[in-house]
Amino acid sequence: MCNYPLALTKIEESSYVLLFHTPRKKWLTKVTWDKKMHTHLGIIDVSSTIGMEYGSAVRTTEGKLIFLMEPTIHDFIMKSERKTQIVYPKDLGYIAARTGLKNGSKVLEVGTGSGALATFMASIVKPEGHIYSFDVNSEFMEIAKRNLEKAGMDKYVTIRQHDPHQGIDIRDADVATVDLGDPWTVVDQVYDALKGGGAFVSICPTMNQIEKTVAQLKKSGYADIDCVELMMRNMEAREGMTRPSMRMIGHTAYLVFARKVEKLQERIQQPASEEEEDEEEESVNNR
Amino acid sequence: MCNYPLALTKIEESSYVLLFHTPRKKWLTKVTWDKKMHTHLGIIDVSSTIGMEYGSAVRTTEGKLIFLMEPTIHDFIMKSERKTQIVYPKDLGYIAARTGLKNGSKVLEVGTGSGALATFMASIVKPEGHIYSFDVNSEFMEIAKRNLEKAGMDKYVTIRQHDPHQGIDIRDADVATVDLGDPWTVVDQVYDALKGGGAFVSICPTMNQIEKTVAQLKKSGYADIDCVELMMRNMEAREGMTRPSMRMIGHTAYLVFARKVEKLQERIQQPASEEEEDEEEESVNNR
Amino acid sequence: MCNYPLALTKIEESSYVLLFHTPRKKWLTKVTWDKKMHTHLGIIDVSSTIGMEYGSAVRTTEGKLIFLMEPTIHDFIMKSERKTQIVYPKDLGYIAARTGLKNGSKVLEVGTGSGALATFMASIVKPEGHIYSFDVNSEFMEIAKRNLEKAGMDKYVTIRQHDPHQGIDIRDADVATVDLGDPWTVVDQVYDALKGGGAFVSICPTMNQIEKTVAQLKKSGYADIDCVELMMRNMEAREGMTRPSMRMIGHTAYLVFARKVEKLQERIQQPASEEEEDEEEESVNNR
Amino acid sequence: MCNYPLALTKIEESSYVLLFHTPRKKWLTKVTWDKKMHTHLGIIDVSSTIGMEYGSAVRTTEGKLIFLMEPTIHDFIMKSERKTQIVYPKDLGYIAARTGLKNGSKVLEVGTGSGALATFMASIVKPEGHIYSFDVNSEFMEIAKRNLEKAGMDKYVTIRQHDPHQGIDIRDADVATVDLGDPWTVVDQVYDALKGGGAFVSICPTMNQIEKTVAQLKKSGYADIDCVELMMRNMEAREGMTRPSMRMIGHTAYLVFARKVEKLQERIQQPASEEEEDEEEESVNNR
Repeated sequence: MCNYPLALTKIEESSYVLLFHTPRKKWLTKVTWDKKMHTHLGIIDVSSTIGMEYGSAVRTTEGKLIFLMEPTIHDFIMKSERKTQIVYPKDLGYIAARTGLKNGSKVLEVGTGSGALATFMASIVKPEGHIYSFDVNSEFMEIAKRNLEKAGMDKYVTIRQHDPHQGIDIRDADVATVDLGDPWTVVDQVYDALKGGGAFVSICPTMNQIEKTVAQLKKSGYADIDCVELMMRNMEAREGMTRPSMRMIGHTAYLVFARKVEKLQERIQQPASEEEEDEEEESVNNR
Repeated sequence: MCNYPLALTKIEESSYVLLFHTPRKKWLTKVTWDKKMHTHLGIIDVSSTIGMEYGSAVRTTEGKLIFLMEPTIHDFIMKSERKTQIVYPKDLGYIAARTGLKNGSKVLEVGTGSGALATFMASIVKPEGHIYSFDVNSEFMEIAKRNLEKAGMDKYVTIRQHDPHQGIDIRDADVATVDLGDPWTVVDQVYDALKGGGAFVSICPTMNQIEKTVAQLKKSGYADIDCVELMMRNMEAREGMTRPSMRMIGHTAYLVFARKVEKLQERIQQPASEEEEDEEEESVNNR
Repeated sequence: MCNYPLALTKIEESSYVLLFHTPRKKWLTKVTWDKKMHTHLGIIDVSSTIGMEYGSAVRTTEGKLIFLMEPTIHDFIMKSERKTQIVYPKDLGYIAARTGLKNGSKVLEVGTGSGALATFMASIVKPEGHIYSFDVNSEFMEIAKRNLEKAGMDKYVTIRQHDPHQGIDIRDADVATVDLGDPWTVVDQVYDALKGGGAFVSICPTMNQIEKTVAQLKKSGYADIDCVELMMRNMEAREGMTRPSMRMIGHTAYLVFARKVEKLQERIQQPASEEEEDEEEESVNNR
Repeated sequence: MCNYPLALTKIEESSYVLLFHTPRKKWLTKVTWDKKMHTHLGIIDVSSTIGMEYGSAVRTTEGKLIFLMEPTIHDFIMKSERKTQIVYPKDLGYIAARTGLKNGSKVLEVGTGSGALATFMASIVKPEGHIYSFDVNSEFMEIAKRNLEKAGMDKYVTIRQHDPHQGIDIRDADVATVDLGDPWTVVDQVYDALKGGGAFVSICPTMNQIEKTVAQLKKSGYADIDCVELMMRNMEAREGMTRPSMRMIGHTAYLVFARKVEKLQERIQQPASEEEEDEEEESVNNR
């Protein structure tokens, strides 16, 4: 049946494998010599996958088909251990695309949380870049470390227990992400840590957070301030009956972006008139 | 005024610089010894920026403030030369996050277009990875090459004029993107080019495209087939009057994702019942 | 406590009352002399509400507060008995607003379903207007009749078991709604039933339905053909932490609108060029 | 070509007619004996339409096809004279569907604006219901009156120049709408004007408005407080290339709904715990 030999990375002991039945029935596990996984679809003999190629299939004891997938960063994040709300892939991806995150980037992360954002950013900036991450909560840090190790990203991320309100000793960061309840309180500290033109990003579940953060950014030497929300909807594509999914996550977070610029006296007045200019244009366009 | 010395990369001759006034008034240009840029905000003496630091400011002849930003991949893409609809950053980012694109990835791109997707993916997979891109239209290829050069990504992308319907001589790709009008017609050729478990992605403006592509993927040895749409809305964050922007792009494209798996006789029946299973669950959840 | 006497309609025997605790804990019931309602919040003595005013409160045996609301058409619809997907209030409202439904309107409904749309439209067109509704499924008709009676709308709606593909003996309708799986098959029959300029509306869950329906409308003497989707998201408004709800219904249905016009030979060519005209304008606007 | 005689209301002198070419090229005008309308599609001899049936077609001097439509309330609103942002049909419809607006309803409107909402509500509540509308701006009132007259709704709406902060002398209203910049300041006055269980609705462009309004409603004797946003997107349905429209209005307004209930001492504590209850359920559901 297979018209092309699957000559690919083989599954080894200690590899992680995504056992995939359907999008909602899948398990991420480490392969060991004697592991058997009990599921409601029957028992999966995980040890038997050693030596098999990614993409191939096994069966549960009940005859259900399980595909062996090489887990991606996306899989590690979606299956990560968490005590906090994670940053979702739609938001992770846009943060990378918008800030120009790339191999070699130096990144400051304020608020490690469960480590989803650090895991993702590390996968992009490695091997030459690095993530410097701070959190005050030691419990979260332990979870984040386990998640990073599992995804193989721990050596590209340095996590420290430190309150960023006390100042941040990082300099010349290309990108800084802030995932705190009160992001506006670290805008000045992050300014010091960024290189000129460097990108500030804040992940904010509420509108009050974006309002306060944007107000502070305007005062603190940032330009190109922008705030967006991404909504993702699945499509059910079936012949003759294609439609959007009836299930949808309504909201995860707003994303605030800005770039560090030279602080100027007059900049404080500048934005107001620019915005009025924009406003006028907008009202004209809407007519 | 500046409380931290901006000790950063300086602008050199031949550097690109983003001349930023407001989000809608900005210009991406190459710095040369004698360049002056005429804008409706006055003349900008681009040559005078040589030796200045990114993040600092100059003025137009009319006294308008211009910040000198180091252009990111996002800036290069948004300011790229184009003859085709480009893939937008919200979609670029999700493609990367969902497929686990990273430094070292080997990528097949079917349909180079104006090169926005190749530019973005190259910035992530470099320096060890590579993008192999195919297009039948030589005019687009020239545009794409200019855009890649400008962004400094040309050495990580090989563009060839070739009709992928004739077969694709790439093997073991981690990720394959398809940006054609009829993506379903190359699903089998892309299968041969992917590694086991490798990610298929198609960018589809219409619902008919996703319907046909998903139907073909189900027949051709793919699992984890999923289709999403991302909608992005700007937020206008102003003290006491925060609201979503009244301007919004309604639609760019749907994204179809799948992973290559072993082709099995019985797989042909499998999905139907899985979906019915999902359907039942869904109807239960909606009650 | 109450600074204004609640001198309003009192609850009588046989009245319907909405027993409201929270938006997700509420019950619509008919008031009888001996009714007691058992809920997980305790027992509600429904009979004790006779003589009370709408808006006032009672307590369950566990001391939980229950407000007595006069049920609106919205409440009757959301609490209706159903065997089919109902048309949701966001879509009901737009159908009324878009077609100009009003007291006195003569309405044809093809596909009675559970009667939600008929209930709503009757509440608007009564007392001088009327809804003529057809369904082939007698089981649905019985459910629809019970729902209409409960909401007090039965005398404004005539339901008949009839296959509309055989022709429809209604003439000069102001508005016609079609809620069938194959709405395109009754476009010509509905044409005959509408007055000149009368509104055609179809409720379509899938994109294939809108594609076929719009194609048929273009051939059959309709103009002002338009198709929309409404997405509704709740906002959680709380001091200092306002954000969109994380729960959201992703999709209910697309709505297709058109108006009956004189059939003209040349009209068949006309739309194509108009659309191209629109297309050109659009591409200009998007630049 | 026409298989059914268009025996419908004929156009008379002084009738309004919608001259329809395409959805974006249409004009609403009053028919007079000598009117000729100059458009970029050529001249339309409006006087010649007297005696013609709605739904039939005429031609411009350049041979372009114009359909004669009987204007609906939707057409009058979309073509109304305006100095303020109008309430859009998607929001108008949901206000009606959600509050159960119907023939006979007594409505209080705080903030007449350009009269779009009053025009729509009058079309539903007439002939037995009535709209009592207040505005402090006499200029808006004149515009609103002209719009209501044009749509034939003036006799169902009483507009008064009055500051609602001074109190409102309406009692027992079924529905009250508030379209002010500071809706929270009239929540108590509206309470006095509503019947028990009567519906409060506020149209709020910003998040700050909904936050303050909901906080005030919780303090002032309202229950079933809910806030929603409706997003509307057009679909371009074409054979083999159906997709959402690339143009979309990003935001119009949030809608806040509540119902008047008896004021109770303890109610002040109640909502908090209910919300926590909801919150718990939500967090469970999201797992």
